Amino acid sequence: MHRTHTCGELRLTDKDQKVTLSGWVQRSRDKGGMLWIDLRDRYGITQLFFEEGKTEASILETARSVGREYVIKATGKVIERFSKNDNLPTGDIEIQVETLEILNASKTPPFTIEDESDGGDDLRMQWRYLDLRRNPLRNNLMLRHRMGIETRKYLDSMQFMEIETPYLIKSTPEGARDFVVPSRMNPGQFYALPQSPQTFKQILMVAGYDRYYQIVRCFRDEDLRADRQPEFTQIDCEMAFVEQEDILNTFEGLVRHLFKTVKGVDIAEVPRMTYDEAMRLYGSDKPDVRFDMAFQDLNALMKGKGFAIFDGAETVLGIVAAGCASYTRKQVDELTDWVKRPQIGAKGLVYCMCNEDGTYKSSVDKFYSQEDWQQIASQTGANKGDLILILSGELHSTRKQLGELRLLMGSRLGLRNPEVFKPLWVVDFPLVEWIEEEKRWFAMHHPFTAPKPEHFSLLETSPGDARANAYDFVLNGVEIGGGSIRIHDRNIQSKMFNLLGFTPEEAQKQFGFLLNAFEYGAPPHGGIAFGFDRFCALFGGADNIRDFIAFPKNNSGRDVMIDAPGTIDQKQLDELSIGLQIKS
Amino acid sequence: MHRTHTCGELRLTDKDQKVTLSGWVQRSRDKGGMLWIDLRDRYGITQLFFEEGKTEASILETARSVGREYVIKATGKVIERFSKNDNLPTGDIEIQVETLEILNASKTPPFTIEDESDGGDDLRMQWRYLDLRRNPLRNNLMLRHRMGIETRKYLDSMQFMEIETPYLIKSTPEGARDFVVPSRMNPGQFYALPQSPQTFKQILMVAGYDRYYQIVRCFRDEDLRADRQPEFTQIDCEMAFVEQEDILNTFEGLVRHLFKTVKGVDIAEVPRMTYDEAMRLYGSDKPDVRFDMAFQDLNALMKGKGFAIFDGAETVLGIVAAGCASYTRKQVDELTDWVKRPQIGAKGLVYCMCNEDGTYKSSVDKFYSQEDWQQIASQTGANKGDLILILSGELHSTRKQLGELRLLMGSRLGLRNPEVFKPLWVVDFPLVEWIEEEKRWFAMHHPFTAPKPEHFSLLETSPGDARANAYDFVLNGVEIGGGSIRIHDRNIQSKMFNLLGFTPEEAQKQFGFLLNAFEYGAPPHGGIAFGFDRFCALFGGADNIRDFIAFPKNNSGRDVMIDAPGTIDQKQLDELSIGLQIKS
Repeated sequence: MHRTHTCGELRLTDKDQKVTLSGWVQRSRDKGGMLWIDLRDRYGITQLFFEEGKTEASILETARSVGREYVIKATGKVIERFSKNDNLPTGDIEIQVETLEILNASKTPPFTIEDESDGGDDLRMQWRYLDLRRNPLRNNLMLRHRMGIETRKYLDSMQFMEIETPYLIKSTPEGARDFVVPSRMNPGQFYALPQSPQTFKQILMVAGYDRYYQIVRCFRDEDLRADRQPEFTQIDCEMAFVEQEDILNTFEGLVRHLFKTVKGVDIAEVPRMTYDEAMRLYGSDKPDVRFDMAFQDLNALMKGKGFAIFDGAETVLGIVAAGCASYTRKQVDELTDWVKRPQIGAKGLVYCMCNEDGTYKSSVDKFYSQEDWQQIASQTGANKGDLILILSGELHSTRKQLGELRLLMGSRLGLRNPEVFKPLWVVDFPLVEWIEEEKRWFAMHHPFTAPKPEHFSLLETSPGDARANAYDFVLNGVEIGGGSIRIHDRNIQSKMFNLLGFTPEEAQKQFGFLLNAFEYGAPPHGGIAFGFDRFCALFGGADNIRDFIAFPKNNSGRDVMIDAPGTIDQKQLDELSIGLQIKS
Repeated sequence: MHRTHTCGELRLTDKDQKVTLSGWVQRSRDKGGMLWIDLRDRYGITQLFFEEGKTEASILETARSVGREYVIKATGKVIERFSKNDNLPTGDIEIQVETLEILNASKTPPFTIEDESDGGDDLRMQWRYLDLRRNPLRNNLMLRHRMGIETRKYLDSMQFMEIETPYLIKSTPEGARDFVVPSRMNPGQFYALPQSPQTFKQILMVAGYDRYYQIVRCFRDEDLRADRQPEFTQIDCEMAFVEQEDILNTFEGLVRHLFKTVKGVDIAEVPRMTYDEAMRLYGSDKPDVRFDMAFQDLNALMKGKGFAIFDGAETVLGIVAAGCASYTRKQVDELTDWVKRPQIGAKGLVYCMCNEDGTYKSSVDKFYSQEDWQQIASQTGANKGDLILILSGELHSTRKQLGELRLLMGSRLGLRNPEVFKPLWVVDFPLVEWIEEEKRWFAMHHPFTAPKPEHFSLLETSPGDARANAYDFVLNGVEIGGGSIRIHDRNIQSKMFNLLGFTPEEAQKQFGFLLNAFEYGAPPHGGIAFGFDRFCALFGGADNIRDFIAFPKNNSGRDVMIDAPGTIDQKQLDELSIGLQIKS
């Protein structure tokens, strides 16, 4: 071993011990007669001390020669520091170095290895191994390790078995785009990388495994954004002989265990909200409930007053931004521009300042009297000093737009502190949704989700009204987990495939193994999957999952450190019976 | 929850409790007035009891209607059994059923769900979910889960961090054949699935992570055998600032922990043997040391006696099979045929029976006197009643052949009990080996393994003599793990690539990121990887890894349950800029 201790463990109680440390040179200070080196490893920083006269001249010379990020090995005596550093656990001591060895030199890094680096994103992605040396990333990966360990500990204690499912499976056109893998031994055929182990975990329930989990990589060949990676990790779980309530309780337990053991935070019972309620109150199926600012239905009060836009709108909805009546005209115009951006898509924004003097000033004073506003303020609970923001239009899109505006106002008002955690179960999701562009029904969760038993008959009469025992776990406005009670009956599954536009032949070809399995004693079952990358990011108080993945890909799906993907040899192509067909 | 208890937990102390159980019908016995159903789940079997007169007629009728593998839910009272079953933990009780519900029917399975099934391999692979219901497979997967949990527990306690490395990486021609994944966003380019996270774990050491592990899937597109799968799982580990001794100690600790916690077995210190010694004594770099039967060098005693075959051979080696002097002529002929099979490749077999009367009877009596044999017996330690088996020829192949024969004789003599565990470290592997067909040096372990420091200079003069700090962990003659101290110096790594036939340009193109990383403060490091599938199989006393993988592939790389790989749409091919080129 090139050390007796790590750079994080020596204390004053170790005084006078002879120790050997190895690590990286964080920085050095040369004051002529005296020289200090901060030696860094994963566990911390310890100060090395060299003194002219006391330290051998050749050692001192070596010490003076080392630059940032050199790897060195020092042996010496633990001594008490003259000027202590309270910010460092090892800050009471330093090492009076007696021997020093350079284990490896380092060129000057292209950016500083500090908590706040001077390197840009691209540079840091390319030199990922240097970026990973920085405390913030190291802390993120340590958090991730801890969350994995605690997740397994909890699930193991609940009798879940981790069972590995295959990565080389079959491509299915339903859902997102698959990554595929040409099979050499089966020319013209392809494996697909799993978007999730969904069918396998259901098969495991049919096989009697009762409680399954896996922390597993999943793959989707979709266009990328900051919070999406072509490969991502799920905590994937399934249980047999359960109803929705059992699953919610079991995984509320997991979440509580993680908060307690990893963050030291006690989480109260997780509230539940139906999908319909979440859409009505927050315009989102993943509402951020760290703050209220719920939607106010203004249809009754604001229609029929001669304002044609509202009169002709399907809905008129508002929110109250507390204390924002002092917004300037410019600030309100900015908000108006913001909601009119194509990403949001509103036609305009109506506002009303509830002035401190009891008067109201709105952008539509022509149509609404002070008394009208008084009534509106009274219904919405707007107080003096508050700002009422109102959108109108088609129900679904107005909700979505106002939902975005609500989040913006929440952020502006400091109501979205990343260190405050407000989990929520959203339940009773619709089974299917109509996608107009494709002129067909799509599964809201996935094709294996069961309709609520009392809604079976709606599949044939009014599928859009059918609700499922499907649930999302939402944390601070981010969907972290989602699951459902599954279909375990062949006929219902066939009906579902039919509703989703599969011919019986297609259904059999793609999911025949599952349909068959349902005929050999499939138990009632259900499950959930958590997005592990996002879960870790939220626990780390961040929203970019990249900083919680050791080796992420960029927005073009490239690993710029290893320079992948790359070309392959013609011999490889030939063996796989494929050829390139690149359009210029 | 469709149950209050599992089928494995009720005892006599639960008598008179009202309980609900759910599970599968293992079997039922109908004695007219009384009916019993064995209800099975993952946790065990509990007997349900129905009695005419006491059980409601409709319930009894339902009970009579259920067949094997039906999923049912029964509520009733725990009662003491009249005739107890000592073989079952729940054998003292049964459930007097009051209500019974069929949760799902089952067709008759294509084979019996019993410890010894009547289903053939192909049938059981196709209906894997039924095969997985059988106790032997369930026990295997539970063992695997337990080994994963305990591996993580130990490594976590030793400060190892589990860090996930990417699955979409870059193809490298060195080593086995890669599975590749066409990149849609980078037309004409391909990812490769990792054969191991080797370079990433080394990068993590450069990044300062100090102790890394991962239980990780790896992929090799090679032709398959019983103990090889296209995807397999490794316990992959790496440590910084260590020497070989530290790694051996750390992972001996892991092995000891696993044996203790999973098998309840205490393992003494693991012996070590050099590669040269293993080859000399057992003709294998993974000797089975559950029994000795070491090779005897017979060159001095058997050459120069006029037997031309031995006189002209590079080596003459023998083993002593205790108590086999009573072998019949037919038995010895069978052995001769066995070693002459092409898989073994010996030209012939010389034997000598050490008779109980003190005489010797050999197949080459013409050349060797009774005194010669007495000397040979004395040197080899052969006693009365033993059989000496002798092979000759070129050193390397003779060792290999005799090694196979030794294993066969060990098996015949019952010396290879799968419940006896004899681990071994094989150390000091050669750095490279010459492959005559390719006329070049190949890395014995991999191109990142460091030569022993004292052998650096041999790289240029006599590479075949260079030894590495490379080690294998061998259990009962199976290589379970292997690793090495790695190169952490750019110049030595470049020299190594050069020795292996890489041009500097190729080395830079394929491994430039690693070579560059070595210039920014790479610490000394090394690691090891264990084959998790094989490790589990050995712990389970089996040699076929397939029974320890939930969803294995067959020898054509097919998952016959889901029928993968399969064809994909032309649209998918177009998006990926590839076309099929199938030779007929």
